[in-house]
Amino acid sequence: MITKKQYYEAQKKAADMIRNSGIKITDKEIKKIEIADFGLSNLEKEGAQILTLFSTERVSAKVIALFSNQTEPEHWHTSIGQDPGKEETIRVVNGTVYFYIPGEDTLQNGFIPDNKDDVYTVRHEIEMESGDQLTLEPGIKHWFQAGAEGAVMYSFSSAARDALDPFTDRKIVRVTKIVD
Amino acid sequence: MITKKQYYEAQKKAADMIRNSGIKITDKEIKKIEIADFGLSNLEKEGAQILTLFSTERVSAKVIALFSNQTEPEHWHTSIGQDPGKEETIRVVNGTVYFYIPGEDTLQNGFIPDNKDDVYTVRHEIEMESGDQLTLEPGIKHWFQAGAEGAVMYSFSSAARDALDPFTDRKIVRVTKIVD
Repeated sequence: MITKKQYYEAQKKAADMIRNSGIKITDKEIKKIEIADFGLSNLEKEGAQILTLFSTERVSAKVIALFSNQTEPEHWHTSIGQDPGKEETIRVVNGTVYFYIPGEDTLQNGFIPDNKDDVYTVRHEIEMESGDQLTLEPGIKHWFQAGAEGAVMYSFSSAARDALDPFTDRKIVRVTKIVD
Repeated sequence: MITKKQYYEAQKKAADMIRNSGIKITDKEIKKIEIADFGLSNLEKEGAQILTLFSTERVSAKVIALFSNQTEPEHWHTSIGQDPGKEETIRVVNGTVYFYIPGEDTLQNGFIPDNKDDVYTVRHEIEMESGDQLTLEPGIKHWFQAGAEGAVMYSFSSAARDALDPFTDRKIVRVTKIVD
């Protein structure tokens, strides 16, 4: 859970990062930036700030802002009914993103969050900078982390049904609880 | 057709417009900006400059730069095999875009290119500015035009197979011929 104060502060900080990256968003969109703590109550360490530009039955575009060294936990996109699962293309706009996928363990510049060794299982590191892109097929486990200066990236995808994404960390709850 | 000189000039002008709009693209991507004259040999009037950021079997993202008062001709996205046709979401980043779809004729601020009355048939005008979005279902005829200052916009879509798009103007050839 996060407090309302944390929520508004994170939203403002994310909006500034997004606008400073050159991405133009409206004032209305700022209020739609989702603050996701993944139910872990440790937003600065494991969390993400996500603005959904649009989301249809076929296509979705989001802007993700990550604070300094903030980590989006390991998850994957499963098939749902006729849909083979979300295909996602990441495009980094600002900062450095360490992106992890299955393959040889090359984790070097990023890090596993404290005491979370068992829930970050894929460790093939891809270092991404502004203009770098990567397309993830459905079902591929992945997690990612911003460098020290934070990061802003796009996520372009087929239909997004994020509430149904499985996470390796079974403690994760996708909906963030906001308290006074 | 366009000359090589026109091609490189248009590419440079489009790259400057895209970067000035805040969108970060790499030097490699500049060389991939497509200059489309739709076979009409009148680029400044009817044409578009298109950078495909990526294009998969399911999702595509493009940046479109339009010069001052430049018009992308009327076309639509048809079904192809199992695909019901391209669903496209436009998001304006810079400048004004006059977007035309079926409905009551409200054409007021844009204009029909000279002597082209018969090939611009849909005239319901939607004026779009930075941050405005519009999602087009497959099969919907549409065309669009930049205001006097030119425009930069995103096109996010399901699978793009632009070479197969039908245009109202039967003279249109989707592949631009470049001559010395």
